[in-house]
Amino acid sequence: MRATVLVRPKAGILDPQGEAVGGSLRKLEFPVTRARVGRLVDLELEAADPVEARAQVERMCAELLANPLIESVEIHVERE
Amino acid sequence: MRATVLVRPKAGILDPQGEAVGGSLRKLEFPVTRARVGRLVDLELEAADPVEARAQVERMCAELLANPLIESVEIHVERE
Repeated sequence: MRATVLVRPKAGILDPQGEAVGGSLRKLEFPVTRARVGRLVDLELEAADPVEARAQVERMCAELLANPLIESVEIHVERE
Repeated sequence: MRATVLVRPKAGILDPQGEAVGGSLRKLEFPVTRARVGRLVDLELEAADPVEARAQVERMCAELLANPLIESVEIHVERE
């Protein structure tokens, strides 16, 4: 099974990297009003079905992949 | 208009961060066979329509957001 985890800074959390990217894009004259930078993790995992895979990935997020205090998580699961 | 850019290391490109994440997940006894780490950029930009927005974001990727030699890019555009 494949899963993609999108990890973003929550609204209201300072994101200096996003501010730097937004500033650089505006200097290049792109009409960007806001930029936020997060990370993504692509996973291949053994799981019987998408429901089990999602449950596994939720536990991975809680234990390692994201900080729930300051980050939000979006999980996409698909069969290989 | 809103856009999300997903930037991933291309297949075959070394990804030490992904290897570290995969190793850590396996130590936690998750059945992960592969992990790759990339980044995401959420953008708010001024554009007349999704087609123009996508063209702008493609130029942003070429000029700043990604290294086409080693990274692949996936762009999602949606109206606000």
